[in-house]
Amino acid sequence: MVTRVLVANRGEIALRVIRACRELGLGTVAVHSAADDGAAHVTAADRAVRIGPPPAPLSYLNVPAILEAARITGADAVHPGYGLLSEDADFAEACRDAGLAFVGPEPEALRTLGDKISARRVAAAAGLAVLPGSPEPVGSAEAVRAQAARTGFPLILKAASGGGGRGMEAVDAPGDLTAALARVRSAAAALFGDDRVFVERFLRSARHVEIQILGDRHGTVVHLGSRDCSVQRRNQKIVEEAPAPALPAELLDRIAADAVRCAAGIGYHGAGTFEFLVEPDGAYWFIEANCRIQVEHPVTEMVTGVDLVHEQLRVAAGEPLVAHGPTGEGAPDGVRGCAIECRINAEDPARDFRPAPGRLVEVALPAGPFVRVDTHVSAGSAVPAEYDPLLAKVVVWAPGRAGALARMDRALAECRITGPGVRTNRDFLREVLRHPRFSEASHDTAFLAGLTEDGDIRTGDPA
Amino acid sequence: MVTRVLVANRGEIALRVIRACRELGLGTVAVHSAADDGAAHVTAADRAVRIGPPPAPLSYLNVPAILEAARITGADAVHPGYGLLSEDADFAEACRDAGLAFVGPEPEALRTLGDKISARRVAAAAGLAVLPGSPEPVGSAEAVRAQAARTGFPLILKAASGGGGRGMEAVDAPGDLTAALARVRSAAAALFGDDRVFVERFLRSARHVEIQILGDRHGTVVHLGSRDCSVQRRNQKIVEEAPAPALPAELLDRIAADAVRCAAGIGYHGAGTFEFLVEPDGAYWFIEANCRIQVEHPVTEMVTGVDLVHEQLRVAAGEPLVAHGPTGEGAPDGVRGCAIECRINAEDPARDFRPAPGRLVEVALPAGPFVRVDTHVSAGSAVPAEYDPLLAKVVVWAPGRAGALARMDRALAECRITGPGVRTNRDFLREVLRHPRFSEASHDTAFLAGLTEDGDIRTGDPA
Repeated sequence: MVTRVLVANRGEIALRVIRACRELGLGTVAVHSAADDGAAHVTAADRAVRIGPPPAPLSYLNVPAILEAARITGADAVHPGYGLLSEDADFAEACRDAGLAFVGPEPEALRTLGDKISARRVAAAAGLAVLPGSPEPVGSAEAVRAQAARTGFPLILKAASGGGGRGMEAVDAPGDLTAALARVRSAAAALFGDDRVFVERFLRSARHVEIQILGDRHGTVVHLGSRDCSVQRRNQKIVEEAPAPALPAELLDRIAADAVRCAAGIGYHGAGTFEFLVEPDGAYWFIEANCRIQVEHPVTEMVTGVDLVHEQLRVAAGEPLVAHGPTGEGAPDGVRGCAIECRINAEDPARDFRPAPGRLVEVALPAGPFVRVDTHVSAGSAVPAEYDPLLAKVVVWAPGRAGALARMDRALAECRITGPGVRTNRDFLREVLRHPRFSEASHDTAFLAGLTEDGDIRTGDPA
Repeated sequence: MVTRVLVANRGEIALRVIRACRELGLGTVAVHSAADDGAAHVTAADRAVRIGPPPAPLSYLNVPAILEAARITGADAVHPGYGLLSEDADFAEACRDAGLAFVGPEPEALRTLGDKISARRVAAAAGLAVLPGSPEPVGSAEAVRAQAARTGFPLILKAASGGGGRGMEAVDAPGDLTAALARVRSAAAALFGDDRVFVERFLRSARHVEIQILGDRHGTVVHLGSRDCSVQRRNQKIVEEAPAPALPAELLDRIAADAVRCAAGIGYHGAGTFEFLVEPDGAYWFIEANCRIQVEHPVTEMVTGVDLVHEQLRVAAGEPLVAHGPTGEGAPDGVRGCAIECRINAEDPARDFRPAPGRLVEVALPAGPFVRVDTHVSAGSAVPAEYDPLLAKVVVWAPGRAGALARMDRALAECRITGPGVRTNRDFLREVLRHPRFSEASHDTAFLAGLTEDGDIRTGDPA
């Protein structure tokens, strides 16, 4: 039984989870940093517990404080959102030990898929193609060099415990290896408390395609179609869409079937995402699985009509999936139209996208038909420097991709978020979406880096 | 060719039309009353022209001023929204004479369907069932009494040129007839400049079901399914949904086919709505046609994925329909899930719903998955007493009706619109939606009147 959900996160995703709980008749508990006193998720929840000061290790990563907040508020489930503790197997296990339903897969699945090397192994065992790379974490610089010689250049160094596009770096030539390795290990240790890395072939020109998975505790695993997240800046997704455009349906079906087979093979339940790189010739490679709700989940919701957080909560309560399941109240099947999401960040494109947080004065959000904005900010909100600079996700839907692009441009034009010192990437996003390579869907993961380096896209004048 | 659209309306619908124009790459011109200086539609449009002071006859009904505004701004089309001039055949003709594309049907169709008596005649000729009533407008009280004796009681007196639920009154017994007739004729003269009335049988227990029609200038007429608008207070719809619930699909198909046949028979183009009363035994009767976009059009958009205002603009430009048409970019077919709309009005339920406008201080609007809010207000907005008290339309979608009701309750709970002297019907709407007769879809057009008279629903304490 799940009756009261503690949301171990902040920002837009915490608010989004609280809304889902309310629609399902579940009580809600927010936890928050002192920097988030009065934040939207704090005021929206039935109860709120302050668990520490910023930054995250003292608050949103403070496991004892979160478990104590659950105890004193009588919560019986924990939704971890994305990032933070969402894929932390130890946290999931601590929740289980405390008698709390963790909204996500079992700790064992988190361990298997959370480690990129064991995830590769599981995927390969399920028959998925994985990029050539090291079979084990690589320790010394000498071992990395040896593995690099076998893998070939360009290659990518990735933190074994990494995620969210952080703790990774592409290396073009042997001479760059030592310095890159030092950077990745240092970042990996700081970000994930684990400095192991592995080596993988790096694809310069590929599409990032991912499959949304849902599984329940009754043996059902389904997919909800594809997303394309090839528009990335330093491995951070900034524009996402569903379904992945300009790829043959037959290819997407095969990728989705691979993802379902791999997830079913390890008894996966909850929401998950299997990420692939797709080459121009149709070859595709499993890269990683994310065992949580994704930032970009709204695009899948808009094309399928399925509320993914509802499904997560149902699965955590032991109920069967409604989406695609036999007991639904008419849950829709299939994918309809095209949805695009843009992430509005508090950052300054003219200053290498450095974070530009502050107190917001004006917050005018887009609205109208087939426009959805997931945000936690409003006029007067404080955007703390210590946390994620995501201000809002602007999501649109239309019957076709051209209509969705026109609608997104209209929506972004309506979006005004201002304050002293605050800058956003709104205008940058509009230029990205208007670029012919994006509007023709001929872009790949190198698209954005090429543009900003070449100066094709104006990043604005310094303030 | 349509390149620049003058929007001859105000409030949320003017803003909604401007957004549609922008998505289609069309320029926009707002016209506005002095009471709407700085209103959302005025700032959203490319250009704005003040056409007079409040009330409407001096501004939004001021045809010469509107045509002059079109001339000086180079507009080549006029979108009339709903209400105001939207079904005024003379205005449509004046637009045509001025070389402007009127976004709506031809003046001839407006005349035929705008007059309730000729609309009944056309519908009957197309084989639709019409309620027993007077074949011609009834003049004297004696003639009304004679017609009433033929029609029987209860009956309803309706203004021949009426619409929007105004200028009509049900009469239960012969003794009430004279006074009711005087009221309706006086209201009809004031509201529509035409004091002719007609007599129709009145159904105490029926569902208000309407069919959304789209027609183009190439002979295509399609329907986009049904809506139920049975929740009415004094003939004003306040809650609408799509599709109409708890009615056999076969019955709805027959009603829709009737509407399409009738519209096609008169060469109807643009968006239109055919309204019917459906009795518990499945008998149904045509009551009227509305030759414009409806207030409640978003529920149809949410279940079909069709942008009705886009379609209106395409048709006005002479293009074929995208929805259900042969040239679409993948426009979806069919109805998916359930959508519900609630109208948030500036009115005081504790004081017989009298308008309670003023300057708004706090405007917190609901958001989140599958929630749409069509509004023109924000913190600081003035809500003028001279115009429609509609503040916002809260619209939700879910795969099934129970999910949509839960989502609407969550959304309404998030909606806070306050200001000195301002009251809203938000809490009243929440109670209506929670009433068993509504949640079981066993309500009819008498549902709300019965409730508020019986005190089943609390209308709040006087402030």
